Amino acid sequence: MKALRWHGRKDVRLDELPEPTAAPGEVVIRVAACGICGSDLHEYLHGPLYIPKAPHPLTGVVPPVTLGHEFSGRVVEVGAQVETARRGDRVTVNPCLLCGECAWCRRGQFNYCAKLGSLGLSRDGALAPLVAVPAYGCHVLPPGVDDQQGASVEPLAVTVHAYRRARLRGDERVAIVGAGPIGLLMLQVLKAKGAGWVVVIEPREERRRLAGDLGADAVLDPEAQDPGRAVAQLTGDERVAVAFECVGSAPAFATALRVAGKGGRVVLVGLVPETVQTNLLGLVAHEKEIVGSSAYVDEFPEAIDLLVEGRVRIDPLVTARVSLDEALPRGLEALLRREEKHVKILVAPD
Amino acid sequence: MKALRWHGRKDVRLDELPEPTAAPGEVVIRVAACGICGSDLHEYLHGPLYIPKAPHPLTGVVPPVTLGHEFSGRVVEVGAQVETARRGDRVTVNPCLLCGECAWCRRGQFNYCAKLGSLGLSRDGALAPLVAVPAYGCHVLPPGVDDQQGASVEPLAVTVHAYRRARLRGDERVAIVGAGPIGLLMLQVLKAKGAGWVVVIEPREERRRLAGDLGADAVLDPEAQDPGRAVAQLTGDERVAVAFECVGSAPAFATALRVAGKGGRVVLVGLVPETVQTNLLGLVAHEKEIVGSSAYVDEFPEAIDLLVEGRVRIDPLVTARVSLDEALPRGLEALLRREEKHVKILVAPD
Repeated sequence: MKALRWHGRKDVRLDELPEPTAAPGEVVIRVAACGICGSDLHEYLHGPLYIPKAPHPLTGVVPPVTLGHEFSGRVVEVGAQVETARRGDRVTVNPCLLCGECAWCRRGQFNYCAKLGSLGLSRDGALAPLVAVPAYGCHVLPPGVDDQQGASVEPLAVTVHAYRRARLRGDERVAIVGAGPIGLLMLQVLKAKGAGWVVVIEPREERRRLAGDLGADAVLDPEAQDPGRAVAQLTGDERVAVAFECVGSAPAFATALRVAGKGGRVVLVGLVPETVQTNLLGLVAHEKEIVGSSAYVDEFPEAIDLLVEGRVRIDPLVTARVSLDEALPRGLEALLRREEKHVKILVAPD
Repeated sequence: MKALRWHGRKDVRLDELPEPTAAPGEVVIRVAACGICGSDLHEYLHGPLYIPKAPHPLTGVVPPVTLGHEFSGRVVEVGAQVETARRGDRVTVNPCLLCGECAWCRRGQFNYCAKLGSLGLSRDGALAPLVAVPAYGCHVLPPGVDDQQGASVEPLAVTVHAYRRARLRGDERVAIVGAGPIGLLMLQVLKAKGAGWVVVIEPREERRRLAGDLGADAVLDPEAQDPGRAVAQLTGDERVAVAFECVGSAPAFATALRVAGKGGRVVLVGLVPETVQTNLLGLVAHEKEIVGSSAYVDEFPEAIDLLVEGRVRIDPLVTARVSLDEALPRGLEALLRREEKHVKILVAPD
């Protein structure tokens, strides 16, 4: 079969690979849809970040590795000792690979696993027709959740987790920096949870329009006006209680820190690859907080529920569906060219 | 009267000033004892930080300004419209100057006041025989709290507030970076509150010894061993849940970030005057948090209670008492020379 594989920075190739088989405790899934994620772009431009430089402690994998960790599909083979998944199940998969033995795994703090890995980063992922996965990662999709929605459960779980990390209270004001797929899912989760007022800060017009359609109370173009001053004006100088950094860049981090008010939390959802310079005096005087948010712990069921209840819409975010052959030129590279219209590109590998 | 005044960076002078009188709503205090604070050292070396560069919005003050914001004394004059303080009261004073009108003041978030000022920084402070203060800042000292303890209520309130900011749970492990006056008060507050295990990281031997005497479960010299690795070894690789930065320097901040474990909070108590460089990828992957802590909101009564109950000891921290004439050469400058023995130096101005 063909598979889209990361070989090195700016070196992603469509390779020919043998089809995977199901080891004990694992299943093989025929992939229906797999999203291209912002962290795939980060790995392409700046990697290896989460892709291992040395043999991964859990999987032993070194690059090349097949990308793809946001996906849905159907179980086509079930390995020995698997009792939780059956052939024919429509599933989405939590891509986290866990040791199951460390202090953090034993406490259920799975995203802190001492040997944490991920499908699509530290082991072959789903930008291929078939992928082998541990059965413990599978979540069956209810009939009301289609393949496209199923492939979005993973990034949606990221935003549900970030929401929890923010410790949001009642009617606090919120800013989202960046209206990419994560920012627009974050927005919908916040509105579903009853956040009082949400401003979205995004330079691309089409994405600002989408943010408005999906419930943003205000949108700002940070290239047309100073976002710190604009948010201060919109909020009677109080700024926001929580700012979610959903870009993964030093300027977006600086914007998030500026729009956060006194006692405000800046929740880092994006991966900022470069070292940032921060003035801690301002952070201390205004008692701001910087809060890292990584992946998810147990948020897949809640993310699926949000889709079942129709409280989060995926269709407006999917701007293209491409084949595996087109995944590089019309997927990854189209996103890297920052084509105005694209938000989430799904690959249908089969 | 004489007063120790900040004129500019590295320019502090003993000036002659007229004695203050009590304006309406204010009282005049004859100062019994006034501590020299780490932030006074920061202002001397790197200021103006909190000392105003332009007329302060609340007080209109520009330098020169009399230093001194940790003090106790006796009320000797009571201004008009004062009902909460009487002549002869032994008091310590919350040095915060508040507008009383902004949204934050109305909510009781006093340390977020839009025009927040402080005695000893944005208005003449207590390194003088007499100081005029707003009556709302006065807290009467119970008989069991002597003048020296009374002059330590302010820094103790800083650490009680930092403790609250840390959201410490049950038996979590804690690190304190820096065993100066704030670090050693932080240690005692943590032990009084029942923190499970506290490691103190401090390069000076005498201060490490004091930390051990005051209840530290472990002490580390960061110049003799790598504190990140040492704390990992001491904690079965989990490191600590909370690290308090009690120095105010970029290296101490880096140490605090390193010794914090997954999901750990770094609480910034010290004032870091320089811009720091931070790798946010590590912060996100390990879901660390950076939490600013500034001054206090309503922690003076709790700090006084801790002294009354004998749960926090001040005497071991006071390494010298000097007169106002000696406050510069044997106070501020002695601390800046990092003389091994000194922790807290009190000035008896009268």
